[in-house]
Amino acid sequence: MRLAELSERSGVSTATIKYYLREGLLTPGRQINATTAEYEESHLRRLRLVRAMIQVGRIPVATVREVLRHVDDDSLGRTIRLGAALWALPQVAEPDAEDEFIQAAHREVEQLLDTLGWSNARALVTISPAYRSLVVAVATFRRLGYDWNPELIVSYGRLMHQAAVLDLDFVETHPSEAEKVETAVAGAIFVEPVLQALHRLAQKEESARRYGFE
Amino acid sequence: MRLAELSERSGVSTATIKYYLREGLLTPGRQINATTAEYEESHLRRLRLVRAMIQVGRIPVATVREVLRHVDDDSLGRTIRLGAALWALPQVAEPDAEDEFIQAAHREVEQLLDTLGWSNARALVTISPAYRSLVVAVATFRRLGYDWNPELIVSYGRLMHQAAVLDLDFVETHPSEAEKVETAVAGAIFVEPVLQALHRLAQKEESARRYGFE
Repeated sequence: MRLAELSERSGVSTATIKYYLREGLLTPGRQINATTAEYEESHLRRLRLVRAMIQVGRIPVATVREVLRHVDDDSLGRTIRLGAALWALPQVAEPDAEDEFIQAAHREVEQLLDTLGWSNARALVTISPAYRSLVVAVATFRRLGYDWNPELIVSYGRLMHQAAVLDLDFVETHPSEAEKVETAVAGAIFVEPVLQALHRLAQKEESARRYGFE
Repeated sequence: MRLAELSERSGVSTATIKYYLREGLLTPGRQINATTAEYEESHLRRLRLVRAMIQVGRIPVATVREVLRHVDDDSLGRTIRLGAALWALPQVAEPDAEDEFIQAAHREVEQLLDTLGWSNARALVTISPAYRSLVVAVATFRRLGYDWNPELIVSYGRLMHQAAVLDLDFVETHPSEAEKVETAVAGAIFVEPVLQALHRLAQKEESARRYGFE
């Protein structure tokens, strides 16, 4: 397809597409003559993905380029490629290792992962941003004097594991490796706001069922 | 307890406590003499809650005051009091009602709520910020040309309903109505980052189980 059709089908203006081409977020089309290039379905898919990262995920252009470099590197294993976008999403700052609440939270989260049997996630504890977020959340909670209910968090963990199984089952319905990886990246951006909205609606629903509408 | 002990037990400086008192986020202690006031356990609980909203939820002071007004108004029904904090969390902008993707997303989300049997949430559709977030997420997804898999979203909805049941069961373990409401507000702030971190860790775990570690 030509640039105009690519723009039409993606809803992205030709000026923006040219910008993405210049920034290396989209590979050039096949040059037909000096002024015309031909684009494939894979360009359309990539364009949607770039748009999702920038517009919905609010990921900076330089980081998008970094994520795509991982997405496109088929020398990497699938686990790393599927997780590429997660590393680019906004992260919490490195927790202060000297802080007593942080130290206690490390122990509690490691215990949690053991209880859940997440031995792979357990092996990533020192580098995973998600692990770091969890430690910071737990430490903050404890610092404010709230109780940590280990059973409740284990139950949340089991639910989130079911969600992750759904995520990956859906990723696997896509035929090519490229589409699998792209779906995982788009999913990382879209699934979280959807789960959050569903959770809030479910709280309203459950609360109204138990206590009535007011 | 005296101000010094309140500060010690909450980890919040006396200067900050005095600021919260001036701003009406904390009710005054019982005055013992001209310079000394006596504070109760309820002050400590309230202080933790205010701290959680401001420091973790990044909710502006004026909004915290608004949330607390709902929390403290026992003429309101429990559903409204429990949900008070949700309304104060950052919200998406009002979607454009004329937009064709927004209109289609409204229909899809209403269909989803019917399938889930969330008739109470369904009745709130015009005013709920969570409903609005979901409509915007779906419309954005569709606008970018991604497929919407209704069965997948229904499955996510059922998981989030299980999470909401856990949330409310935990809220109900607290003895007094005031503590129930306070726990729901603190929960609204803490549960989402914890679920998000657990979800990301679960994705890593599941991915490593299926495809190995790299």
